[in-house]
Amino acid sequence: MTQSPSAPLPQTPLLDQVHFPADLKKIDDRDLPQLARELRDEMIDAVSRTGGHLGAGLGVVELTIAIHKVFNTPDDRLIFDVGHQCYPHKILTGRRDRIRTLRQENGLSGFTRRAESEYDNFGAGHSSTSISAGLGMAVAAELDKSDRKVIAVIGDGAMSAGMAFEALNNAGALDARLIVILNDNDMSIAPPTGAMSAYLARLASGRTYMGIRDFGKKLTAYLGKTVDRAITRAVGHARGWATGGTLFEELGFYHIGPIDGHSFDHLLPILRNVRDNAKGPVLIHVVTQKGKGYGPAEEAADKYHGVNRFDVITGAQAKAKPNAPSYTSVFAEALVEEARHDEKIVGITAAMPSGTGLDKLANLFPERCFDVGIAEQHAVTFAAGLATEGYKPFCALYSTFLQRAYDQVVHDVALQKLPVRFPIDRAGFVGADGPTHAGSFDTAFLATLPGMVVMAAADEAELKHMVRTAAAYDEGPISFRYPRGEGVGVELPVRGDILEIGKGRIVKQGSKVALLSFGTRLAEALQAAEDLDSAGLSTTVADARFAKPLDTDLIRQLARHHEVLVVVEEGAAGGFAAQVLHFLAAQGLLDNGLKVRCLTMPDEWVEQAKPEAMLARAGLDHTGIVATVFTALDHKTVSFGTAG
Amino acid sequence: MTQSPSAPLPQTPLLDQVHFPADLKKIDDRDLPQLARELRDEMIDAVSRTGGHLGAGLGVVELTIAIHKVFNTPDDRLIFDVGHQCYPHKILTGRRDRIRTLRQENGLSGFTRRAESEYDNFGAGHSSTSISAGLGMAVAAELDKSDRKVIAVIGDGAMSAGMAFEALNNAGALDARLIVILNDNDMSIAPPTGAMSAYLARLASGRTYMGIRDFGKKLTAYLGKTVDRAITRAVGHARGWATGGTLFEELGFYHIGPIDGHSFDHLLPILRNVRDNAKGPVLIHVVTQKGKGYGPAEEAADKYHGVNRFDVITGAQAKAKPNAPSYTSVFAEALVEEARHDEKIVGITAAMPSGTGLDKLANLFPERCFDVGIAEQHAVTFAAGLATEGYKPFCALYSTFLQRAYDQVVHDVALQKLPVRFPIDRAGFVGADGPTHAGSFDTAFLATLPGMVVMAAADEAELKHMVRTAAAYDEGPISFRYPRGEGVGVELPVRGDILEIGKGRIVKQGSKVALLSFGTRLAEALQAAEDLDSAGLSTTVADARFAKPLDTDLIRQLARHHEVLVVVEEGAAGGFAAQVLHFLAAQGLLDNGLKVRCLTMPDEWVEQAKPEAMLARAGLDHTGIVATVFTALDHKTVSFGTAG
Repeated sequence: MTQSPSAPLPQTPLLDQVHFPADLKKIDDRDLPQLARELRDEMIDAVSRTGGHLGAGLGVVELTIAIHKVFNTPDDRLIFDVGHQCYPHKILTGRRDRIRTLRQENGLSGFTRRAESEYDNFGAGHSSTSISAGLGMAVAAELDKSDRKVIAVIGDGAMSAGMAFEALNNAGALDARLIVILNDNDMSIAPPTGAMSAYLARLASGRTYMGIRDFGKKLTAYLGKTVDRAITRAVGHARGWATGGTLFEELGFYHIGPIDGHSFDHLLPILRNVRDNAKGPVLIHVVTQKGKGYGPAEEAADKYHGVNRFDVITGAQAKAKPNAPSYTSVFAEALVEEARHDEKIVGITAAMPSGTGLDKLANLFPERCFDVGIAEQHAVTFAAGLATEGYKPFCALYSTFLQRAYDQVVHDVALQKLPVRFPIDRAGFVGADGPTHAGSFDTAFLATLPGMVVMAAADEAELKHMVRTAAAYDEGPISFRYPRGEGVGVELPVRGDILEIGKGRIVKQGSKVALLSFGTRLAEALQAAEDLDSAGLSTTVADARFAKPLDTDLIRQLARHHEVLVVVEEGAAGGFAAQVLHFLAAQGLLDNGLKVRCLTMPDEWVEQAKPEAMLARAGLDHTGIVATVFTALDHKTVSFGTAG
Repeated sequence: MTQSPSAPLPQTPLLDQVHFPADLKKIDDRDLPQLARELRDEMIDAVSRTGGHLGAGLGVVELTIAIHKVFNTPDDRLIFDVGHQCYPHKILTGRRDRIRTLRQENGLSGFTRRAESEYDNFGAGHSSTSISAGLGMAVAAELDKSDRKVIAVIGDGAMSAGMAFEALNNAGALDARLIVILNDNDMSIAPPTGAMSAYLARLASGRTYMGIRDFGKKLTAYLGKTVDRAITRAVGHARGWATGGTLFEELGFYHIGPIDGHSFDHLLPILRNVRDNAKGPVLIHVVTQKGKGYGPAEEAADKYHGVNRFDVITGAQAKAKPNAPSYTSVFAEALVEEARHDEKIVGITAAMPSGTGLDKLANLFPERCFDVGIAEQHAVTFAAGLATEGYKPFCALYSTFLQRAYDQVVHDVALQKLPVRFPIDRAGFVGADGPTHAGSFDTAFLATLPGMVVMAAADEAELKHMVRTAAAYDEGPISFRYPRGEGVGVELPVRGDILEIGKGRIVKQGSKVALLSFGTRLAEALQAAEDLDSAGLSTTVADARFAKPLDTDLIRQLARHHEVLVVVEEGAAGGFAAQVLHFLAAQGLLDNGLKVRCLTMPDEWVEQAKPEAMLARAGLDHTGIVATVFTALDHKTVSFGTAG
C-alpha cells in the first residue's frame, strides 16, 4: 500500500534547477510559490518512502525558501531548532540526491548535523537550543567585526523550555544582532500547553495588532529610515503587527509579527528589511500551519509529526505487524492499573503525552495527569513538590530528555529522598533517530547518586512488576528503564508483583560461566547461554533487575562460583557494570582471578541504523556475548550455533 | 578582632517571646518594626560568629516576619528559593537556640532543609527551584481540596534561570493557587545581568505604575469585592502598582507591586488580602535592600553575600592566613595569561564572576568575558555557538551547577565534538555549604561521554598546565576539575605546559603497591606511600591526570607489576575508578588476581563539616589509603606512622 521504491517521482521542473541556495537567487520572487509546491511534493514523496518527520517540514517550506533566498547562507548562519523541520532545507542545500536515504543507515540524518553539511550550522535533536547557539554565533560575528547574520528558527512549543528563555534574556541584555524567527504553528508534537502558548495565541488573534500607520512609524523610528512602500503594502495583507510592550519587547527584542508564514509577499520584504537594517536582536513571529499542503497531514491530530512510510494518495501509513505490545503501551496500561488502585498516583509528562503513553492516564484521570510542556527541569521539581505532599508522581521522560533535568533529579529529588518515580522510556539504542535521541547515559548518571533506586526491565512482564514496585516504594526516588519498540512477547500478568528492592534473580543455573544482565539484553543472554552450554560451558544467567542497590548476595555468588562473569547492559560504561566492578573490587572478589568482562554500548556516538544492527555491532547480542566468553577463556577458534 | 564566643549577646526582649510563628500572632502589628530590629541584631551576631550568608537574610527580615505573621505556617507552605536567605526564618521557627551552630558540623544547615524542620517545606541550595516545587504543592492542595496556601519567595537573580520561567509558564496555565513573592533586591551574588533584571528595574522605576484609583478598581474586579480602605491607604505609601500587560500578567499571573519590602504597612495588608482572596497564581513584586540594616553590608559591593566570621562593630572579616593561593585564583590568573596569548579565548560565567575568578578576565578583556546570569544551560550552548565560530570558550562553572547543563554538555557540545573548555571549580567536598554544593558527580557524568577529555589537577601547578592544555586542545570538549580552597603550595610556573592528552605520570616508583590518584588526593597518596615504604611495602604513586582518555600504558604497567592497585578519587563511584576498572576488565588485567581497590566519596549525602574531616571519614586521606592497602593484603593488625 505504501510507495514502492519504483513509484514515479513528482514532476519538479523548477526545483530541478535548484541545487544550492545560490541557484535560488536566480529565481524570480513570483515563481517561488511554484517552487514551494514542488518542494512540498518532493518532500512528501521522500518521507512516504523513508518515514520520518513530515508535518513540521511541510509547515516551513515557504519560510525555508525565503530565508535561503534572502540571506547568504551558509556565510549567514542558519539554525533550525530541534532540527526535525529541516528536510526542505536539506533538499535546497545540496542534499536532494540523498533525501530518500533520510534516517537510514549511512543516509541523511533526520536532523541538522554539522558533519553532514556546511549549511547545517548547528546540530539539533533536542529542542530549544537554537537561540543560545545563535547568540554565541552572533557575538562571535561582532568580535570578528563581521557583518554576517545569524538566524534561529524556533517553534512555539520550544519556547516553553527554560533554556530558550535564558537565551532570550541574555540576548536582550547583550543587544546582539540575532534574528529569531518564532515559527508559531500552535503545536509542537502534542497540543500546546503553558501560558506562553496561550499568550502567543492571543497575539496571533489580532487583539493587539497595530495599524499599518503605527507600524510604519515604529519601524521607521527603529530602523532610522523610511520604510519601503512595498513593505507597507505587504503589511496590509499580513495578519498584523504586534504592538509595543509584548513579552519579547520587554526582554529587549524588536518584535515583528505575527505574519503569514506561507506568504512570500509577507516573508520576503520583512526578511530583507531585517537583513539590511536590524541592529539589535529581532524576533519575527511567523504563523504557519503544521502539515501545510498535504491533506492527510493537515487533518490529522498530530499533523503527521512523525510517520512511517505511507501512501501519498491516501495518507495511509505502513504498519509493521507487531509481535508483542510496545514497552510504552505496557507501561501506560500498568500505570493506569496502579492509578485505579491508588488515587495518590499522578503522572507528569513534558510535552510527550502519547510518546510516553501518559495519554492513557490522562484520558481516565485527567485531573491526575499533567503535561507541563517542553520543560523537563520543571517537570521533575514539580513532581518533587507533589511528592512532599504525599502524592506518588510518575515523571515519565525519555532517557535522553531526562538529561535536561539532571540537576533537579540530584538536588530536588535524590538529596531530599523524595519518592518521585522515573519511568525512563527509549533507554538504549533508538534506531533511526540516531545519537541525539539515544538513551545511553541514564544508568551512569543515576546509579552514582546516593539513595537512588535504579531498575531496568528485562521484558514487558518485568516492566509491569517495576511499575507496581515503583508505586509501592515510598522511601525515596526510584527509576526503571525500558527500550523503544516492542516487547519480547512474554505472557503478561493482569497486575505486576511488588519486587523486593535490590534483589535480582537467577534465570538459569550453570556452573562455569555467569552472565549478569541488566535490562532487555536478557533474552540474548539466554540465547548465548544455550550456545555456550552446547559448547560444553555450563552457563548461569541472572537478571540483575537493580543497578542500585545491587543484589550483593547474587553477585557474590556469581563471582565465587564461576570462572567467567560477563556483565551485560545496553548503556554507556559507567553505569551498571561499573557499579558491579566497584562492588567486586571492594569485596576482594576479583583477587582470585575471576575473569570479569563487561559489554556496554560503545564509547562512540553511534549513528542511525536498525537497532538490531547497532546492538550486534556493539557485541550486545548473543553472538557478542558468546565471543566475549570465549575470548576470556582464551579459546582461540570456536564454532558454535548462530555465531558462524 | 572578630566576635569572641563570649562577646555579649544583643538585647532582644521582644524576640525572646517568639519561639515559633504562633507566638508572632500575639504581637501587635505596631511592634513588628521593633521585632525586626531585634531579629536583625540577632542574625548579625550569629553570623559574626559562624560566618555564612549575611546580606540576603538581612534583606528579608520584614518579609519573613510578615509571612509568618499573616500565614499559618507550616500548614501553609513556605519555600525560600536558594535557601541562603533563611536565617531569620530559622530563628523564628524554633531554631534560635542553635542559630550559632550554622554551617558547623552537626549544626544547622546554611540552607532550608526538610529533615531539619517541618517549617522547611522544601530544601534548597541551588536557585530557581521554588516555583516548580510550590506549584507541585499548590496542585496537591487542590487535589486534596485543601485551603492551605503555598508561598514561594524567589530573588530577582533566580528569575533569569529557565527553570523559573518554565514554572511560571506552567503555573499560569494551570491557574493554581500559588503565591510567588519576587524579592527584588537588584542583585543576586554579582550585579544582575540580563534583560529580565533590566525589565524589573524599569517596573520598579515607577514608569509603569498605576494610580491608586486604577489599582482599587483592578483589585476589586479581580477579587470580586471592594478593596479594604486600609489597603488603599497603604498603596498611597507604597511605591506603586504595576499596570496590566506586564510580563508576569502575560504569563497568567495576577501581578502586584512593586511594593516596599521593608514596610510592614505595605506588606501586611497586601499579604492578608492575597491570603484571603486570591484564587489563581499571584506574583507580588517586593523591593528590598540586600544587607539592609547593617552598615558595612549595605556599603559593600557584594552586600556581604557570603562572609567569614567578622567584627560586628567594624564589619572586618576574619581571614585565615593562606598557605598557598586558592585554586580559583590560580585558574583565573592562568586563564588571563592564556587570553593574552590567544585572542580567541573567551570566558563565560553563570552569575559567578568572582566565585569562578572570571572577574579577572573581565577586568582585562571585558568584551571577551560574558556573565549570562543564573543560566547554566544557556551558558554551555552559548559557548558551543562561540566554538563553532573558532572561538575558544572557557565555560567556568562549579561542579554542582554544571549538573544544570548536563544535556547541553551531552547534546550541544560533546555530540558535536565542539571544543568547549569546562573549568570545574568546587570539585569534591566543599565543607560548610554541605551536600547541595558538593562536587561529587562530575567525573561520573562526564567520563561516560564519548570523546570527552576529562582531567583533574593534582595541585595548583598542574592546574596551570591544564588551563594551557585546554587552551591548546581544539579537537573536542575538554574539562578539568579542581577543588574549593587553597593549593598545596607548590612552586608555580609562569605559564603552564601543554600536557599530552591521555598521559599520566609516575610520581614515585615502587614495586609492590601502586596508588593511582586522580586529582588533589595525590599529596595524601604520597604521604601514604611514605608510610607504606616504612612498613616495607614498596609503593608506586601515579598521577592519572586524565579520567578520559585513560593512560592505558600507565594503567597496564601498574596492574602488571604490582600486587595491589589502589585507585583514589574525590568523586562518587562511577567516575575515574569505574573507567579504570572497565579498562582492566576488558584487557583481562584482573584475570591474574590483581588486588584492586577503589577509594571514592561515600555513597551517601555527606553533611556539612570541615573538608579534612569529610575526607578522613571517606578514607580519602593517607590513613585511609594505607588502611586500604593493608586490608587488601590481609594484614590484620598493623601499626604505622600517623595511622596510629
